[in-house]
This record gives sequence, C-alpha cells and structure tokens, in this order.
Amino acid sequence: MIKMHNTPRGNRLHIAIFGRRNAGKSSLINSLTNQDIAVVSNIAGTTTDPVYKSMEILPIGPVVIIDTAGIDDVGLLGELRVEKSKEVLKKADLVLLVIDAAEGITIYEQDLIKECQQRDLPVVTVINKIDQNSVTDNDLADYKNTLGTPVVAVSALTGQGVADLKISIIQNAPKSWDDQTIIGDLLQPGDTVVLVVPIDLAAPKGRLILPQVQTIRDILDHDAIAVVAKERELKQTIDNLVCKPKMVVTDSQAFLKADADTPPDVLLTSFSILFARYKGDLETLVDGAKAIESLKPGDKVLIAEACTHHRVEDDIGTVKIPRWMRQFVGGELQFDWVSGTKFPHNLAEYKLVVHCGGCMINRREMLARIMQVRQAGVPIVNYGVAIAHLHGILRRALSPFPHLAAMLD
Amino acid sequence: MIKMHNTPRGNRLHIAIFGRRNAGKSSLINSLTNQDIAVVSNIAGTTTDPVYKSMEILPIGPVVIIDTAGIDDVGLLGELRVEKSKEVLKKADLVLLVIDAAEGITIYEQDLIKECQQRDLPVVTVINKIDQNSVTDNDLADYKNTLGTPVVAVSALTGQGVADLKISIIQNAPKSWDDQTIIGDLLQPGDTVVLVVPIDLAAPKGRLILPQVQTIRDILDHDAIAVVAKERELKQTIDNLVCKPKMVVTDSQAFLKADADTPPDVLLTSFSILFARYKGDLETLVDGAKAIESLKPGDKVLIAEACTHHRVEDDIGTVKIPRWMRQFVGGELQFDWVSGTKFPHNLAEYKLVVHCGGCMINRREMLARIMQVRQAGVPIVNYGVAIAHLHGILRRALSPFPHLAAMLD
Repeated sequence: MIKMHNTPRGNRLHIAIFGRRNAGKSSLINSLTNQDIAVVSNIAGTTTDPVYKSMEILPIGPVVIIDTAGIDDVGLLGELRVEKSKEVLKKADLVLLVIDAAEGITIYEQDLIKECQQRDLPVVTVINKIDQNSVTDNDLADYKNTLGTPVVAVSALTGQGVADLKISIIQNAPKSWDDQTIIGDLLQPGDTVVLVVPIDLAAPKGRLILPQVQTIRDILDHDAIAVVAKERELKQTIDNLVCKPKMVVTDSQAFLKADADTPPDVLLTSFSILFARYKGDLETLVDGAKAIESLKPGDKVLIAEACTHHRVEDDIGTVKIPRWMRQFVGGELQFDWVSGTKFPHNLAEYKLVVHCGGCMINRREMLARIMQVRQAGVPIVNYGVAIAHLHGILRRALSPFPHLAAMLD
Repeated sequence: MIKMHNTPRGNRLHIAIFGRRNAGKSSLINSLTNQDIAVVSNIAGTTTDPVYKSMEILPIGPVVIIDTAGIDDVGLLGELRVEKSKEVLKKADLVLLVIDAAEGITIYEQDLIKECQQRDLPVVTVINKIDQNSVTDNDLADYKNTLGTPVVAVSALTGQGVADLKISIIQNAPKSWDDQTIIGDLLQPGDTVVLVVPIDLAAPKGRLILPQVQTIRDILDHDAIAVVAKERELKQTIDNLVCKPKMVVTDSQAFLKADADTPPDVLLTSFSILFARYKGDLETLVDGAKAIESLKPGDKVLIAEACTHHRVEDDIGTVKIPRWMRQFVGGELQFDWVSGTKFPHNLAEYKLVVHCGGCMINRREMLARIMQVRQAGVPIVNYGVAIAHLHGILRRALSPFPHLAAMLD
C-alpha cells in the first residue's frame, strides 16, 4: 500500500537500496511496499540519477526509498558511480545492500560497507532470491562474519523473509529516527493548540504526566502556542481566542466533554491517538481497532503489556478493556495476558492482540513488536486506539488524519 | 513587622500558643512577630474565646497565631476549657506549649501533649523566661525526655533563643505546609496566565523543566488557564487573547523581551521570583537583594549551594554571579563558596549570603537555612532574586507583589 502523505521529508526514514545489477533491488522495493506492479517507469540505465520515492512501509511508517538502480555497479563506471553513490549515502539514514544468493560477496559490497562504516551509517545486508538458491544458517553466519553487518535472507519474489527484513530495518534504523514529532508536523508556525488536561486523583501531585509535557514541548519546538486548560474551562478558553485554535487535544477521559465544547471546524484528537502515532504505526493500530468489530464470542484475544507494572484495582488491561470488549462483542471472549518482551509462540491462534501504549519502550521496540504480531497474521491495536473505538469516539479523534478516519467507513 | 496580606487563610501556618497563665504567651507572640507593643486590646480573662491573629513571621511567612490567653488553665475550669482547647487544636497546624522556666511541668502540659499526639499535631515546647531562671542543657534534656517533644529555651523578653524557636517551628511544621501555591493565590478562577518558555540548548530534550510544569499544574489547580509560548511568539499570543492575561511569567533569560511585549497593565514576573517565594521567603530575599547596593569593594560574600552539582563551564554560582556582582559594585569582592547542608562558623563575617534556588531541597529546609543566616545578622538573597536585581529587572518582576516592589524605593 503506497501513500503520499504530507509528512515532511525530514521525518521520513531514508532507506537507500544498493546492490549490483540484477541483485533484485526493484523487486525488493516492490516487496517491501506490498506493491504488485513495478513502481518505476524509468528504464534501468536510462538515467544515472538515483530516484527518491516517498512511500509508506507498514508498520515502519513514512519512508523515502532511494532507488540506485541507475548507478548500480555496471550501469556506471569509475568516478561518476562513486560520486553518485556518495551523494546518496549523504542523504541516507540506512542502507539495504542487496546480494543475489547465487552471486555472493565481491569487492563492490566490501567497498560500500567500508564507506558506510566511515559515515556511521547502518547497513542491513539482504541475501535475495532464496527461492532460487537456498541459504543455510551457516551461510548466513559466514555472510555476517565477512561483512560485519546484520544479514537477512529473503525472496523478494515470494515475500519470504520480508517481515524479518522490516524488523531488522526498524532495529537498525539510527537512534534519531526515534525522534518522531508528536504533533508538530500537523501544525504551522503560530498555530494555537488547546490541550485539555483533567486534574483528577490519577494526576501526579503538583505535576503533569509526561505525554502532556512532551506535547507542550513539541508544540513550542514547532513555533506554535500551547494553551492548557481543564475540561471545565475549555469552552471559555476557546471563546477567549481571537483566532480559533488549529486543534484541541484532550485526555481520553474528557473526550465527550471536549467533543461538545470544540467547534466542528476545529480538529479534535486525544493524547492517546497522538502517542499511538508517535510510538507506533497509527494506521496498523486503526486497522486493529476495526478488527474488534469482527470478533465473535469465544474468540481468543491476547492482551500484551511491554512492562510488568503493579496491577491496580480496576486495572485497565486485566479488568476494564476486557469488560468493554465483552460489552462490545456481546458475549464472552477468551483473554490471555502476557507481559514483558516476549510474545507466546501460539500468536497465530489469536484473533486480535491488544497492546499497551508502550510508555516504557521506545518507538523502535514498539514497531518491532507490532511487526512480530503482523507477521503472525494477527491484527494489533493498542489500549488508546482500542478504548477510543470501544467508546465510539475514534472517528472524531482521527479528525487530524482524514485518510485514517476514512478507514472506519 | 506585622503585615496583613491577602494570603488565603488556608495557606497560612496556624500556630496555637498554649500555656498556663503567666507562662508568657503574649510576650512570646510579640517576640516572634518582632512587635514591641502589645498586639491585643482584649484584657486577659474578659473573653473565653481564642483570638486568631493573621501575621507575618519572617522568614516563616504568613501565619495565623491562635492566642489562647482567654482559655489558659486557670481562666476557665473544667469542661468549658477542654472544649475550647479542642476547638483550637482542630484548627492548629502546630502547637507552641509555653512553660515558665520557674514553674516546670504539670498535669496541664502532659494532658495537652497527649491530646496533640492523638491528633498527630506537632508540639514545640518553649521554656520561657530563661533571663530570670537559667536553664542548663541537662534541664532541657530532661524536659525533652519527659515530654517527648522538641524543646527550645527562650527569653521572650530579651529575644534570646527566639531565632532557634523559629527554626524549630519551621522544622516541625506539618509536611502539608510545604505545599505552598506557586502562583494560584494570585489568580482568580478563569484567569489566563501566559508562560514564556524559551527553548534553548539548556532546555531538556523533549521536555520542560520542572518549575515550568509545576507552574502550569498550579494554574490548572486554581481553575485558571495556562498559555505556553516561546518569547518570539509572546506578542502574537497576547494579541490573540480576547481578555488580556492576568499575568505573564517568563524565564529570566527572556525577561527583557517579555517586558517589551507585555502591556503595562499586565502583571509580569519570572519563574525565579515565583519560586523564590514558593521555596523561601521572598521578602527576606528582596531585602537581601537591596543589600547588594551597600556592598563595597573588598567585602566578603558567601555563595552557598544546597547541593553539590557538577560545575559547568561559565557556572552560575562560581562564574556568572561573581562577575555580575563585581560589575555592579565596581570592584573586587572576596567570594567564598560553600555547598551542602552546613554553613561555615564564621557566617557573621560576610556582608551577604547569595544562596542557590534550592531546587533540590524543600521549602522547610530552605527557610531553616534562611533563618540560620538571618540569625547571624547577615542579609541573604537567592540566585534568582539577585540576578533580577543585578540586571535591573527586579522591580518589574515584583509587579504582582507591590508591597515588595515598594521595598526597592
């Protein structure tokens, strides 16, 4: 599924695909983006310029694929190739080095990896065409030792190993890639955002909770203005603004009140939705929310938490979400619970995984976990998106993301 | 010095003064409040009601003294006295139990202490009139053992020991007394406060610093609205408000810009000033700031930090403040530095103590430290108030506190 969103280029992971001619670079790109047809109209060899393609790779999110088909090893010789390659390496966040399993390592691959190491640029080596030439674990270990990079075996043709490759991309992406914006990419400089922060017993004494603080900071970082009010003061707060706010962001528990007090032409969302996007892949999670609608009594649902926290009375994961889901489905469901970094081996038995918000893990870990679940063919939703859907507020909460709201139609 | 500010009663430490007739309760009150004349017009015995007096005790701040002269042991007998005493104990945060050094302990003191212990109410025993009856360290230890309370020996007449009593009051005040409001007592429900938060290299990545978060929370806790903007967006932010804000609070480093962009009829202060008040005693610190004006080249200045932090290049305490003070004084000063919980023994040699903001200690500790310095007859200022004065912005930054701004005239 390819999407051209308005994500600023700076936030997109730039993945450069290198490899000798016929290593299978183009088919790997198609495989990564789940495209069945060739994405490029330019005929290999007719241009010596790399092609930059903005795409969405689920669950990695928006990426720029830098297709170097025009400058592969025999397409250009000598200095011009080196120069064009260096230009690409400057812009890349991560390099996929594609090797035909039948061909093995040459001086081309070794030079490229050396160049990347000097630039501190992560490389994932992709051994392609394993449908034609089988690759043993020993072969992979040899590749890894010789090249000094992570190695993944795939068949771009059959899709075998592509999910593992996505996990490896997530795990090897540079740290800076974790620094997604929370809300800033949705704002113009000078925009006003109203944050609705209920003060109840759960609020930490004398503080705000971290997601609220991070959102304020992200708004300031993007030259916008944050207005913070309790739900009771929301209407007055909006009325007191000469220019209406660009967006209202509310704590989920105050959503209905915020919905009532936010003019229809003002975008409204929740901290949970912003953080589902910030921490993971909102599109996959919305897809997972839709899967709740297909659940039938008796279905197995796995509730997964990334960390082991002290369970409180009326715990969200063990009590509240199961209750709301039973009410939604209209019958009993078979819940299992897992916490920590490992999923059970029988993932495929579940009709849905409901994951915590991942407040204690970073985006990279959350995406890797989402990918693991998807790889088992199971839809996944997180607490925030699930609760929004169970309470009937998901569509309005997706108003800043109309292409995702449309998924609910 | 007695002041009647508009501090809500709830924020004031309520100190109940108990003791048998002639223990010296009234003279102790006068001594604590530095008053030379009797503060009460009611003649002892003419009323059986306790008298509530709102006062300012430096550096403790606003207090309510509950004067029980009308219900002391022989003024009322039996049940009525017990009933009136219980009424006072219900309202008190701390009890001063005054004993005439010549009289010693009776069943009256023991009953009262038992009653306070049942209510979890702190008691400080005051052995008064030590000018007439000397009290040895052994005597004090005996009192302490018998009563199970802290014991301070004073002469309300000469003032001896009264500074120690203030320290003991601070140290034994209930924990809840540390929960001063940062800004909420200056606001009405529905007020808007604009916070100016520069985002520079010193700002923690993706966060706000704690005083900013605490201020936002305190604004919400008082049903007001917090608007957070960088200094560059301040003018636009104020212009976008239909009702002008009640107050602008800025990071000190953006003060001049905030001053320029804040309409003259809007109060303006800094986080440093709010936290000097929240953490200590703003009046004493402003008094300390004035003392900078009297410094002469060659004077000794002690710079004190409550915690030992890693010194950075261009450190505020060792580099910047000394530089600004030398420039202000127009000559060399003798700086000493001390960090940690102990002051040097030669405190009285200093013309001024400049103390850190006390971010790592609580209000109670900060007040006790301020008191220690005052006890040595030395003025004390903190970093925030000192810097504001050295940069000529203290008067404007005191605009929410006109009685303190007037001290600079």
